[in-house]
Amino acid sequence: MINVGIVGGTGYTGVELVRLLMGHPEARITAITSRSESGKAIADIFPNLRGHLDLRFSDPATTGLDACDLVFFATPNGTAMQMVPELLAMGVRVIDLAADFRLEDQAQWRRWYGIDHACPELLDEAVYGLPEVNRDAIVKARLVANPGCYPTAVSLGFLPLLDAGLVDKGTLIADAKSGVSGAGRKASVGTLMAECGESFKAYAASGHRHLPEISQTLSQVAAGPVGLTFVPHLVPMIRGIHATLYARLTADPGDLQDLFETRYAHQPFVDIMPFGTHPETRSVRGANHCRIAVHRPQEGEMLVVLSVIDNLVKGAAGQAIQNMNLMFGLDEANGLWNVALLP
Amino acid sequence: MINVGIVGGTGYTGVELVRLLMGHPEARITAITSRSESGKAIADIFPNLRGHLDLRFSDPATTGLDACDLVFFATPNGTAMQMVPELLAMGVRVIDLAADFRLEDQAQWRRWYGIDHACPELLDEAVYGLPEVNRDAIVKARLVANPGCYPTAVSLGFLPLLDAGLVDKGTLIADAKSGVSGAGRKASVGTLMAECGESFKAYAASGHRHLPEISQTLSQVAAGPVGLTFVPHLVPMIRGIHATLYARLTADPGDLQDLFETRYAHQPFVDIMPFGTHPETRSVRGANHCRIAVHRPQEGEMLVVLSVIDNLVKGAAGQAIQNMNLMFGLDEANGLWNVALLP
Amino acid sequence: MINVGIVGGTGYTGVELVRLLMGHPEARITAITSRSESGKAIADIFPNLRGHLDLRFSDPATTGLDACDLVFFATPNGTAMQMVPELLAMGVRVIDLAADFRLEDQAQWRRWYGIDHACPELLDEAVYGLPEVNRDAIVKARLVANPGCYPTAVSLGFLPLLDAGLVDKGTLIADAKSGVSGAGRKASVGTLMAECGESFKAYAASGHRHLPEISQTLSQVAAGPVGLTFVPHLVPMIRGIHATLYARLTADPGDLQDLFETRYAHQPFVDIMPFGTHPETRSVRGANHCRIAVHRPQEGEMLVVLSVIDNLVKGAAGQAIQNMNLMFGLDEANGLWNVALLP
Amino acid sequence: MINVGIVGGTGYTGVELVRLLMGHPEARITAITSRSESGKAIADIFPNLRGHLDLRFSDPATTGLDACDLVFFATPNGTAMQMVPELLAMGVRVIDLAADFRLEDQAQWRRWYGIDHACPELLDEAVYGLPEVNRDAIVKARLVANPGCYPTAVSLGFLPLLDAGLVDKGTLIADAKSGVSGAGRKASVGTLMAECGESFKAYAASGHRHLPEISQTLSQVAAGPVGLTFVPHLVPMIRGIHATLYARLTADPGDLQDLFETRYAHQPFVDIMPFGTHPETRSVRGANHCRIAVHRPQEGEMLVVLSVIDNLVKGAAGQAIQNMNLMFGLDEANGLWNVALLP
Repeated sequence: MINVGIVGGTGYTGVELVRLLMGHPEARITAITSRSESGKAIADIFPNLRGHLDLRFSDPATTGLDACDLVFFATPNGTAMQMVPELLAMGVRVIDLAADFRLEDQAQWRRWYGIDHACPELLDEAVYGLPEVNRDAIVKARLVANPGCYPTAVSLGFLPLLDAGLVDKGTLIADAKSGVSGAGRKASVGTLMAECGESFKAYAASGHRHLPEISQTLSQVAAGPVGLTFVPHLVPMIRGIHATLYARLTADPGDLQDLFETRYAHQPFVDIMPFGTHPETRSVRGANHCRIAVHRPQEGEMLVVLSVIDNLVKGAAGQAIQNMNLMFGLDEANGLWNVALLP
Repeated sequence: MINVGIVGGTGYTGVELVRLLMGHPEARITAITSRSESGKAIADIFPNLRGHLDLRFSDPATTGLDACDLVFFATPNGTAMQMVPELLAMGVRVIDLAADFRLEDQAQWRRWYGIDHACPELLDEAVYGLPEVNRDAIVKARLVANPGCYPTAVSLGFLPLLDAGLVDKGTLIADAKSGVSGAGRKASVGTLMAECGESFKAYAASGHRHLPEISQTLSQVAAGPVGLTFVPHLVPMIRGIHATLYARLTADPGDLQDLFETRYAHQPFVDIMPFGTHPETRSVRGANHCRIAVHRPQEGEMLVVLSVIDNLVKGAAGQAIQNMNLMFGLDEANGLWNVALLP
Repeated sequence: MINVGIVGGTGYTGVELVRLLMGHPEARITAITSRSESGKAIADIFPNLRGHLDLRFSDPATTGLDACDLVFFATPNGTAMQMVPELLAMGVRVIDLAADFRLEDQAQWRRWYGIDHACPELLDEAVYGLPEVNRDAIVKARLVANPGCYPTAVSLGFLPLLDAGLVDKGTLIADAKSGVSGAGRKASVGTLMAECGESFKAYAASGHRHLPEISQTLSQVAAGPVGLTFVPHLVPMIRGIHATLYARLTADPGDLQDLFETRYAHQPFVDIMPFGTHPETRSVRGANHCRIAVHRPQEGEMLVVLSVIDNLVKGAAGQAIQNMNLMFGLDEANGLWNVALLP
Repeated sequence: MINVGIVGGTGYTGVELVRLLMGHPEARITAITSRSESGKAIADIFPNLRGHLDLRFSDPATTGLDACDLVFFATPNGTAMQMVPELLAMGVRVIDLAADFRLEDQAQWRRWYGIDHACPELLDEAVYGLPEVNRDAIVKARLVANPGCYPTAVSLGFLPLLDAGLVDKGTLIADAKSGVSGAGRKASVGTLMAECGESFKAYAASGHRHLPEISQTLSQVAAGPVGLTFVPHLVPMIRGIHATLYARLTADPGDLQDLFETRYAHQPFVDIMPFGTHPETRSVRGANHCRIAVHRPQEGEMLVVLSVIDNLVKGAAGQAIQNMNLMFGLDEANGLWNVALLP
């Protein structure tokens, strides 16, 4: 039984971690912290947990996180890097669901996140937790940087094409759409239902923090720099990411369906749907799957890849638990094999 | 291991039965029928099942349902009553999720459903599957009539007050609101998103089929006729029922919170929330719980009870599995103890 | 041409006033104030106004509101009462869309709004701006208290029954549902789309500020105290209020449809729909109409009245302009005769 | 006063035509036909019209459409081409909101719409009704083919770039998103709220009927063939189209903002927003505007253009009235200058 601590439990990734861990046979939540809600019962804030978890938020400063085998950080960017060195020193393993350890280059971190990194010496050690790329390293990791939601959906869709060297690496386009839970559980005018309901818009079209993260992954796979245009959009729904990916063929691709199916043959959570179909975000709502379908319109040069995930599951808490399973020698799918909620 | 058949698997209660049974350790789906989709893989219609269930719809006429221990009917009203007598004769137990066996009085059935009952001789035997009222009878039943969604939410909210004889039985009011999945998965203009999205309305305010069903249950509890006004409404969301119940006190109620908590002390799926709070439908999304809170505005005579369920779970498929558990001697909560999906 | 000022133009009632006044042939917006956004172009905050209105927010302290013929207050509760006495003294007429002048009894105001009233001497003079009740007084008013959204929908539905003395005044029930724009345009966790989308709940079931306001109106019509239970709910949509009203008959009502049609025969914005029908909130989206339908389920004692408005129009800005029209001797419907946006 | 007939008035473009024409000072609806609803009052089907329009649907076969100055066809594809020749012969002008006269090449029509064209001799005469491209021809037209919704949003976004010859014509990408009203008001499982609410998906990614229509327009502007990849998506909202357009620069573009502003300087309904901003679909809800913003991420080669319209207004009924205004010598914006409904 893995003793798990969660730092920052009042956001959506925090409560999603709790929901999924409640169904995990080998993990037990022993502490969940929140500076602002310390002392309050979790179920008072998240009534879906009534009857399931009888635990109170504790103050991170006084919570003995060193008694945990693993600590998840579900905190805003910039928090984990303040606490992780000490936890690692005490022998606690860490999965950070924020961005603190995702970029290998601290200059890039400073540029996109606006502050200096607090422990750049750990950036080399941290493993980017995308199991479909880094499984072996995750198994041995002390510190895992859980990927962002957009990067997960986009990277999984492009990977087979870049692996195979079939497309123009310089003109990749990722037109991505996310439900509003991606913006987090914090008071804000822009994500009020009266503001973002019944409407659709792009945001950060000139530059989003997930751009360098995606570029880093794709460059590693492509073994060279890539040129990526990434435009995120806000969808008037709560959960789900849909990435529509465009890549120009530079060689005869052969059987594209086979290429994708082979690439993900041993990946339990990537589902390649029949060629020319259209995955819906609801088909993964609450589940850890990424579903992908490939199109080649009019048999032309431009490929279209459609990739969907639940931003809070494969895009956050579910992938974090998948990483935990790998780090602790469990079956990768342990506790994660539920069916998506449809309708 | 219980061998389960599902008749009519292409609707929302059908796919929800499948979703929940996938996580049930003691049940196995051996057949799922659909006249219209016979031969088609279930996962082709419900892509959330890809990777989980490799089964095809079969024709009900040629499917050996007699090999099942239990058959669920997730069919339109009037279908089950054509097939149930034969199944029972072959020793198969049945849970009907439609209305065929809910009303004890066949004249009432004819009045509200517009056709004669095909097997009125079974109406006496059929047990109304509301475990919080009829647990003992369900345990012994061959044929269970699974309650309607509105009747579940409304009855559970009124029960403690009628049990205790505290309120005027003649002027009960149930103002109920349902998500659109309650209308089923069939082509219809009225439930298009462009018609019912971003709008709210009542329907069937002068008389809905669930009125006699609720009245029957409440009358039995109250040991006498009740006068109920029931107005259903359509909410622009997919899942969830919220019943707002009004009852006029006719006696000093004492401690109302204690009354409700005591009534449901041993019912795993009824959660009495703190006095004066407001349950949200999302707190039970995908889960089998009914959450209830009681209000007494301005310490006056009028009580307000708020009761929420997921119409597809405690209002249909979840309650059906709860009944299955009872009929087969399993723990009542087996396979049903998941956490609601929030947000 | 009426010169109009708007104090507090950054909220939803403010922008709705602007939208409607843009189509009004006899009114012209000369100033719109906002402390926080002073200097900013209105169209930068509300891009639907681009190309329509080239005006900037000004500081209320330095804006010459005395040059206006009429000032609308679209401010939070408690603001208008600080400024109104001076404006009236300068000969400016005022319509307050907040609650400052709605309650005639200052003790009630203190009880429900938590602060002392700043100008109780004006409470007698202020006219409650429900034209269907107080048209004559509005025509002559200097100061109009624009009704709340719930009070408008609920009062219009009950009026004919109380006028006629047909129902039990002591057990009135108003089960009301509102879209989320009613909560205003301010950062808040509770009205994030990820919190209130795809969910339904009651709120303030034990006591809402609109209760004394509705009771005051109904008592005046009924010429005696009324007993009202009022439970508001939050609907996952942006605009619209649906009130479901319950009243117990105490006398033979005769032709109910005729009663309602006669009561509102000369009211341009109240539409009595055919008996037994179901008004939808979308049928009044963006329009100043209130649509009402009456039901008498099973020909029993309990009447059900369904009443819908757009909370931002007939429930706020539209009704305010209707009041302006009356105060300035214009046709009541001037600038308000647009068709609701459906779908 | 223009006497207007509407053929096919029970769909969303039909009711939207009625809504907008109600506010048009120079047009009067004299007939509205529907085979299925003949004899029924329009306001019984569309209650937003109660009190505004007292007209009944008539049978198209017996309605004297020749008494109209102009007939709008708001019918399914393939209907108008059966009736238009006769109407034109009688001197009635026609605007077809369906696709019958949009493609100049009848072979293309057959390929994408699956039937032979009934009056190919009119394809040359028909004017494609995009005023920002064809204003002069529209002014003189007897028969206008009103553009599709996607083609309007996409074409207006690409035009300035193609006009100026700045981008690679062979690799244009249009990632477009539409609300569900675009699917029309017909019973269908796929557009039930329980199916398409709270979910997002692409559809027809391998080939949509609007592809040849957009390509035709862009080719004419570019004076040569274009290579376009067009992927439409379904957004869980009712109204609105958002097109995200990608084009690779092949020359120094100079001041892009100026390029767009200059191109649309005299177009009343195209609003170029500040460089690098993000138009929201709600900013045009119910209005005839197209709002466009341009991005050049990281000052690179790939341009991103964001273009939004209301699919039922600038994408259908509003543009049709804009065309009517031009055909009858009225001000182009007559009856169309309302403010979008926000929130």
